[in-house]
Amino acid sequence: MISPMKYERGVLRLLDQRTLPHEISWITCQDLEDVAVAIENMTVRGAPAIGCAAAYGLAIDAFRFNSKKIWIEYKNVFFDSCKRLSNTRPTAVNLFFTIEAVKKLTSKFCDNTSMEIVKRDIERVAQDIFESDLNTCKTIGQNGLKTIGHLPIERLSVLTHCNAGSLATAGYGTALGVIRSLHSAHRLRMVFADETRPFLQGSRLTAFELSEEKIPFTLIVDSAAAHFMKNKMIDVVVVGADRIACNGDAANKIGTYSVAVNAKHHQIPFYIAAPLSTFDPSIETGAQIKIEDRSPSEITHFNGIKLAPLGVIAQNPSFDVTPNELISGIITEKGVLTKPFSREIKRLFNQ
Amino acid sequence: MISPMKYERGVLRLLDQRTLPHEISWITCQDLEDVAVAIENMTVRGAPAIGCAAAYGLAIDAFRFNSKKIWIEYKNVFFDSCKRLSNTRPTAVNLFFTIEAVKKLTSKFCDNTSMEIVKRDIERVAQDIFESDLNTCKTIGQNGLKTIGHLPIERLSVLTHCNAGSLATAGYGTALGVIRSLHSAHRLRMVFADETRPFLQGSRLTAFELSEEKIPFTLIVDSAAAHFMKNKMIDVVVVGADRIACNGDAANKIGTYSVAVNAKHHQIPFYIAAPLSTFDPSIETGAQIKIEDRSPSEITHFNGIKLAPLGVIAQNPSFDVTPNELISGIITEKGVLTKPFSREIKRLFNQ
Repeated sequence: MISPMKYERGVLRLLDQRTLPHEISWITCQDLEDVAVAIENMTVRGAPAIGCAAAYGLAIDAFRFNSKKIWIEYKNVFFDSCKRLSNTRPTAVNLFFTIEAVKKLTSKFCDNTSMEIVKRDIERVAQDIFESDLNTCKTIGQNGLKTIGHLPIERLSVLTHCNAGSLATAGYGTALGVIRSLHSAHRLRMVFADETRPFLQGSRLTAFELSEEKIPFTLIVDSAAAHFMKNKMIDVVVVGADRIACNGDAANKIGTYSVAVNAKHHQIPFYIAAPLSTFDPSIETGAQIKIEDRSPSEITHFNGIKLAPLGVIAQNPSFDVTPNELISGIITEKGVLTKPFSREIKRLFNQ
Repeated sequence: MISPMKYERGVLRLLDQRTLPHEISWITCQDLEDVAVAIENMTVRGAPAIGCAAAYGLAIDAFRFNSKKIWIEYKNVFFDSCKRLSNTRPTAVNLFFTIEAVKKLTSKFCDNTSMEIVKRDIERVAQDIFESDLNTCKTIGQNGLKTIGHLPIERLSVLTHCNAGSLATAGYGTALGVIRSLHSAHRLRMVFADETRPFLQGSRLTAFELSEEKIPFTLIVDSAAAHFMKNKMIDVVVVGADRIACNGDAANKIGTYSVAVNAKHHQIPFYIAAPLSTFDPSIETGAQIKIEDRSPSEITHFNGIKLAPLGVIAQNPSFDVTPNELISGIITEKGVLTKPFSREIKRLFNQ
């Protein structure tokens, strides 16, 4: 099981997810700007993985600062770096969650805290975020197995959209974590993997992960999911999320909402698998989630080849919001939340 | 407005729809096998256009036979040629409708009917099928305008899937015929065109047609249609069909069913635009429609470039069936059919 990043003493190596599965190459990030660009251009993607990469970015940033200096001399650089990271991609809340976690840590520094300590502490927080994400994913997998395992079908066919796998997290994955757990427990028949246009995270990344681990799967075009549901080939849907509001509304890769509507129409349970770091307690509903519009060229071109006539107007929202009423349950490391989500989410965040 | 084929004295020229919109090239078909291969490899596609091409294919076949001979000497070749065409693609019923129409014509030949007459008559039927399809599309456009024009919105935003345009017919188009009519009547705000994976008929063909005629449109990935519906950006859906059963169930390009489910969820009217030649009075329901499974490589590769890991299993059903209860109306050249479709379809075919 692959991890999309490796950090060591001020250097972050990121698996380049743009060239997978054909080329396994690693990008070396030596400063914060390298990390910011890697998030923007989707070298690293997936909400939890973006959060981890951002934490390491801040560790690298501190690492590069003169270690003879003190916090007050670095402070402005630090806040600028936080701002730079915040401006990379707007939708995944884990990014902001990470930045807040590191900011919270720095609030305990005094003006003359040495950079050695600043470096050490930020690095430790980054490592903690990474390790905790890995453990969280494994717990999500187990919780998913327990809940979905209750379905009265010996071996389940599971549809997933996009990639909420090892590559989207510190490792193991959220939705793919649940699928891995089902597979280990011999409860999985087949994964139906949506190819996930326009960036093809399904055919490139999910297919790569499942192939590596010999988990049986079938790749389909996104629009075919409904057809397979109608033909009773799908028992349950499990997807990840990029941001979840207090009422349970969940933003995830464009196309997730369409899958959810179809799941409801076919009375198929639809689960979100996501860590608590994906919840945004500051927003009441999904209407407040900012949806990133990415370049139309992701739709009109492929690998530099034109797919459409020149000058065509395309709209490329990268995410959509699935309203809570379409979600059967949200599988977290603290158990599986059920309706009404508002109450359960409130309970979790007021603990 | 472009037509996808030109016939003249035993030679059929087909616009190669595989290389559109980047290259406008014409393929010359000199015998029936050329036409059969062009249907199989989707040089020509779209149910009505396949029907027209098949008719011309039979005309070419007769043309190539020694004109000094008589019908009895050609008869076996003719029936073999019909069989060859029948085996090209299974879903579009217009193909079989055309073959039956030509067979019906030949049933009036005597053993010694001269090949000159056979040729002339088959060619005339082929021309009739082509011209009638063109007129039919224009009438469908007008009927669509009348019905959809009743919606109390001054300028409509219309979603379409795949290409049911000039290129899919003799010219003008079915779903795009309706859109053309709305545009001419100044009732169109915007077309949302699904790119239509895996063959990209939306980004390549629909975008090409709409660009040529300066009809405003926005290209989106298929899975985003639901998101735009939720955001109230789509007023009505109009798509074509490849085969319609007696109860109104309609087969069309994969992804149409997903659009229909989403249209229902968002209470958006969903129309099929199709000529009577797309109806199959021999089947009661959509369950009897044979769905073509095309090569998985259409999903796993693009222009020879691998999109997924080697050896991946993909399933590529080329069509799906939208059940009648999701269809608001079927726009034909004989008016717009409404529920219960069975009664209206029976009435039309028993006339």
